[in-house]
Amino acid sequence: MELSDLQLIIISSPSGAGKTTLTRRALDAFPDLTFSISHTTRAPRGSERDGVDYHFVDVAEFERLRDEGAFAEYASVHGNFYGTSVNELERARAEGKRGLIFDIDYQGARQIRAKLPHATTVFILPPDLIELERRLRGRGSDDEETIRRRLQKARAEIEQYAFFDYVIVNDALDRAAADLIGIIRAERCKRQIQALRAEALLR
Amino acid sequence: MELSDLQLIIISSPSGAGKTTLTRRALDAFPDLTFSISHTTRAPRGSERDGVDYHFVDVAEFERLRDEGAFAEYASVHGNFYGTSVNELERARAEGKRGLIFDIDYQGARQIRAKLPHATTVFILPPDLIELERRLRGRGSDDEETIRRRLQKARAEIEQYAFFDYVIVNDALDRAAADLIGIIRAERCKRQIQALRAEALLR
Repeated sequence: MELSDLQLIIISSPSGAGKTTLTRRALDAFPDLTFSISHTTRAPRGSERDGVDYHFVDVAEFERLRDEGAFAEYASVHGNFYGTSVNELERARAEGKRGLIFDIDYQGARQIRAKLPHATTVFILPPDLIELERRLRGRGSDDEETIRRRLQKARAEIEQYAFFDYVIVNDALDRAAADLIGIIRAERCKRQIQALRAEALLR
Repeated sequence: MELSDLQLIIISSPSGAGKTTLTRRALDAFPDLTFSISHTTRAPRGSERDGVDYHFVDVAEFERLRDEGAFAEYASVHGNFYGTSVNELERARAEGKRGLIFDIDYQGARQIRAKLPHATTVFILPPDLIELERRLRGRGSDDEETIRRRLQKARAEIEQYAFFDYVIVNDALDRAAADLIGIIRAERCKRQIQALRAEALLR
């Protein structure tokens, strides 16, 4: 399967840094991009819907799919499996989309990047760890133990910024969204991508 | 002189591809950037003002400045000299600006890039050569011989896209401006630039 003609935008962040909201903003700005719906074994949160936000499956089903080679990438994060199916990439192409946006944790991001080196990786940072804690509590969907574990992991996760092409500090949502949209535009203007148009102009 | 903390955005294009208009749009979007006013030996065109659009000097004055080492870069383009003075870079820093936008021909762009490798280089392409000819004639400031020579050079100039980081096809001004603004935003989000903020968050 040849994927190098699809624009792949991978968005990761420590839990609660706002990547889901920013991903929606980017999808609104680019109708030619589609959201990559991951498979996961974790329980749905809040208003999440099966087949829209995630494909929710149990561990046995996830392992069956994995063993069949159904995943382009997968990872275990916070004790749950997450994966991107090859089907998902084929769907984007069949729909005539120019690319996909992935909203995934950093382990998954590093795996996708290793398999698809032309992917653009963006890391969203919370403005500070106090603000991150406030957002996790404000979400109201996690118990105290879960919040404590996520904050402990947040510090370790922030260090993962070093593996990403771009880093956005989400201290103001509109500015952060404009940064993300700018990155997607800029990536489309890279010389290597535009070379075909330049050469067509010369003929 | 240490310039690596200034964002340097170099915009080049074949004559008439619209780089001056796009440069103005970018300056409107980023008050923390300033326009680098080049020295040139060519005659002012239309409403161009000395000390605003260019520092207009004669060949003897240009050569005197060059020999004094006053230029960070200079080049001969279409039979005229163009140069960026070291003073201009120092002015940006003294004014507390984050960076400069350079509107220069490709020979100058290649020289600046060689001297300042962290500069971001953007090449503006006209949508096609017929449109480029229409724009040159529409400008009304050049005679037939000048227009003919510029078109001949345009083909050779278009091939210079290969030396630039980004290529924007100016087939729709608003979209091209959004692309340029996106590139400047994206460059500010590059991991290497944001590393200081990420490390501060961890302390």
